[in-house]
Amino acid sequence: MKKIGVVLSGCGVFDGAEIHESVITLLAIDRAGAKGVCMAPNVDQMHVVNHLTGEESVGEKRNVLLEAARIARGEIKDISTVKAEELDALVIPGGFGAAKNLSNFAIKGENCDVHPEVFRLVKEFAAKKKPQAALCIAPAMIAKIYEDASNKLTLTIGNDKDCSSKIETMGSIHQDCSVQDFICDEKNNIVTTPAYMLGQSISEVAEGIEKTINQLIKMTS
Amino acid sequence: MKKIGVVLSGCGVFDGAEIHESVITLLAIDRAGAKGVCMAPNVDQMHVVNHLTGEESVGEKRNVLLEAARIARGEIKDISTVKAEELDALVIPGGFGAAKNLSNFAIKGENCDVHPEVFRLVKEFAAKKKPQAALCIAPAMIAKIYEDASNKLTLTIGNDKDCSSKIETMGSIHQDCSVQDFICDEKNNIVTTPAYMLGQSISEVAEGIEKTINQLIKMTS
Repeated sequence: MKKIGVVLSGCGVFDGAEIHESVITLLAIDRAGAKGVCMAPNVDQMHVVNHLTGEESVGEKRNVLLEAARIARGEIKDISTVKAEELDALVIPGGFGAAKNLSNFAIKGENCDVHPEVFRLVKEFAAKKKPQAALCIAPAMIAKIYEDASNKLTLTIGNDKDCSSKIETMGSIHQDCSVQDFICDEKNNIVTTPAYMLGQSISEVAEGIEKTINQLIKMTS
Repeated sequence: MKKIGVVLSGCGVFDGAEIHESVITLLAIDRAGAKGVCMAPNVDQMHVVNHLTGEESVGEKRNVLLEAARIARGEIKDISTVKAEELDALVIPGGFGAAKNLSNFAIKGENCDVHPEVFRLVKEFAAKKKPQAALCIAPAMIAKIYEDASNKLTLTIGNDKDCSSKIETMGSIHQDCSVQDFICDEKNNIVTTPAYMLGQSISEVAEGIEKTINQLIKMTS
């Protein structure tokens, strides 16, 4: 059974992993006959957002690994213990957590830093030419990790001009893409889909993610 | 477009709404061409559980409506503002939140109390003969609400003998059911499925929930 790593970044669109994208990813992996292996960095979230009002819950602290464990029903690993050799592919769902916790792209844009263990694992996958997928805003972080790669990456975050121009500043090629579709960079083994960067409904988002996961698993063989 | 109320009980299997069940419910509603209307009571959770260790996070407080807003991406109503006349059907996903926050079935079993606004809304649906669904452990709470109903309810929480005997003590008839299937009580317009009370994988759970939601929506016409 193929093992697909799923990198979560908390639990909730505004300060963590986008919950719909994460669950749809886990469901698509299971339906494809593969096993999802959840992981997250053991680090405090950048902040906590009240998802009813959209405002920051000042003074409140939450840990990315503990919150991500909610999506994983307790079955989750600290990403620092995971090696690419144990897995066949990797997928990073979106949500602001990818741009606030796994990296600080939400604050520093093209000058962002990536969490060192996320950086290390993605680089290990790249070195082994194992396939990876990134959803929603997560491709911006992938662009940063591949900034110095010899083959320019081609990826999508949908059609947001501000975000795509930052991705191009980091040296990747951005292609506009509809929410039901995906972009596959076959040279670099990277699949990306816009998900909620563009999606107006959970069905649209699911269609794009299901195609992305099926393509990702196809590339493992 | 049919409007289906979705009653959430927090965000996380051990102290709130089961996240997979909630997202699969919202996806099935959207794919059926209906609109999901999320709601939750504005009340503190019974407690907060660290989902990595399974232990209580003593001293931590979270609000059911605020945490449920994470699953709903911010689009959620206080259940006290919702009336059955605005909706075509109602569904209550599971997770311990149904037995700890919407009711206290986890503590008091067949002698449990149900949150008054949840009780009121389910009774309104019953009075209007509008269809309702309950997943996982949530049917136990429905049994309590229907304790004095003239027609005995028939429902399922899978095959857990301890839980099903409490349901029968509350006056309902329990039928064992596989995770991929559902029980439909046509007299009372109630559909139930075991979900993670029985499910070993997210795909199995999704199969039962999709059938349940499709049956629920069929019963609205």
